[in-house]
Amino acid sequence: MTPSRDAFEARLRQIGAERYHDLHPFHDLLHGGGCTPDQVRAWVINRYYYQHAIPMKDAAFMSRVDCPDLRRQWRARIEDHDGTAENEGGIRRWLRLAEAVGLDPDYVASRKGVLPATTFAVDAYVRFVREKTLLEAVASSLTELFAPRIHASRIEGLLRNYDFADDSSLSYFSTRLKEAPKDVAFGLAWVLDHADTADKQDAAAQALIFKTDVLWAQLDALWGAYVEPARIPPGAWVPGQGLGLKEAS
Amino acid sequence: MTPSRDAFEARLRQIGAERYHDLHPFHDLLHGGGCTPDQVRAWVINRYYYQHAIPMKDAAFMSRVDCPDLRRQWRARIEDHDGTAENEGGIRRWLRLAEAVGLDPDYVASRKGVLPATTFAVDAYVRFVREKTLLEAVASSLTELFAPRIHASRIEGLLRNYDFADDSSLSYFSTRLKEAPKDVAFGLAWVLDHADTADKQDAAAQALIFKTDVLWAQLDALWGAYVEPARIPPGAWVPGQGLGLKEAS
Repeated sequence: MTPSRDAFEARLRQIGAERYHDLHPFHDLLHGGGCTPDQVRAWVINRYYYQHAIPMKDAAFMSRVDCPDLRRQWRARIEDHDGTAENEGGIRRWLRLAEAVGLDPDYVASRKGVLPATTFAVDAYVRFVREKTLLEAVASSLTELFAPRIHASRIEGLLRNYDFADDSSLSYFSTRLKEAPKDVAFGLAWVLDHADTADKQDAAAQALIFKTDVLWAQLDALWGAYVEPARIPPGAWVPGQGLGLKEAS
Repeated sequence: MTPSRDAFEARLRQIGAERYHDLHPFHDLLHGGGCTPDQVRAWVINRYYYQHAIPMKDAAFMSRVDCPDLRRQWRARIEDHDGTAENEGGIRRWLRLAEAVGLDPDYVASRKGVLPATTFAVDAYVRFVREKTLLEAVASSLTELFAPRIHASRIEGLLRNYDFADDSSLSYFSTRLKEAPKDVAFGLAWVLDHADTADKQDAAAQALIFKTDVLWAQLDALWGAYVEPARIPPGAWVPGQGLGLKEAS
């Protein structure tokens, strides 16, 4: 028998409660003001790689959807990240954060110095969405269910603890707080509607677990390279050499 | 002007000297006898994921080769890993190592408990070989140029430092010492022959760097999860719970 819609939604939410990356100690360090400026920079450089891939992931999804209504609905995600005539978009907002923490936005946008482990995890996500069922692809986006609480605590923590933080540099997060709920409400309803067998519920839950792994692995890599005991892998950004920093004005 | 064949070979060897994973501190720990039994097990569980993917990687390569001679040459790699009537093959040998360190080989073969970061890195390698040029695919295999020295030091170090180590449990490595040289001699000659422009040399060198990143990222993940400060990501193998262990006989 297929578990009820409510039971399935509770199962998805439980995955977030147990595995979402707000539980990773890097976020405590970051939001609590414990990061050095270079650790914040390493996070901004690596997280940019994730941001830059999201619209490619969404385009990969749309390339497999033959229903114009669903494509139209999904297209808003690409607009939110890449921008429109009226909206600079999340990627430019992230580069403003990069500049605020002292990085050269062109360096960040070049994606040089990103940890290989970041690229492996993020690229796995894009390929997952390209290759798995549409149900699994939509389900993997549902980590956004858990994002509002991390964005709220991040804005509050960064504002309190870091000089670089202000409305402009943090506009990526404040905008996501407004954008994410509409996306995730649609995605959740779509998954609940389409996971109409126990097997499909299992596949959707596994997809969401996969995505929590993608997010967690990025913070593990960041921690191993830049926190303690910091051991930067060959080729990744090395602080203290001036590389990637904004020129003093 | 295209750099000479000798200069190009030296460039490839230099990549190994600077980035091959024999430089990672996990190997010092392992070969020097500093690993706990559970750390050895975590290595065996995760490295199995790499082993299991190698014949898929080689099949992905062969699926793109239209020259029977090259396919025939390459097929030996799959035979070395998957086995033949006369040769049990590297994957079974690895599972004997698993058993020798106290793991249930069926658990290891199930690939449960593998670190997500391991799967992201290894899957990235399989996809690289599936998607990039044949030259890049062959070049990415050339980390085997540097493998004999790690296998020799591993056999010597494991035999000296761990009770589980004997000719049978370490036969994976002693066999690779015999097999790898013929593969890599062919692969190196093929790359030197086919990288006949400066651009192709650059692409081949980048492919080899990519592969060193794949190997390094696996050890970083292992270190972060199981060495110090050990922080096992959700879903990965947790020592001390009896999970995945061989039943006492």
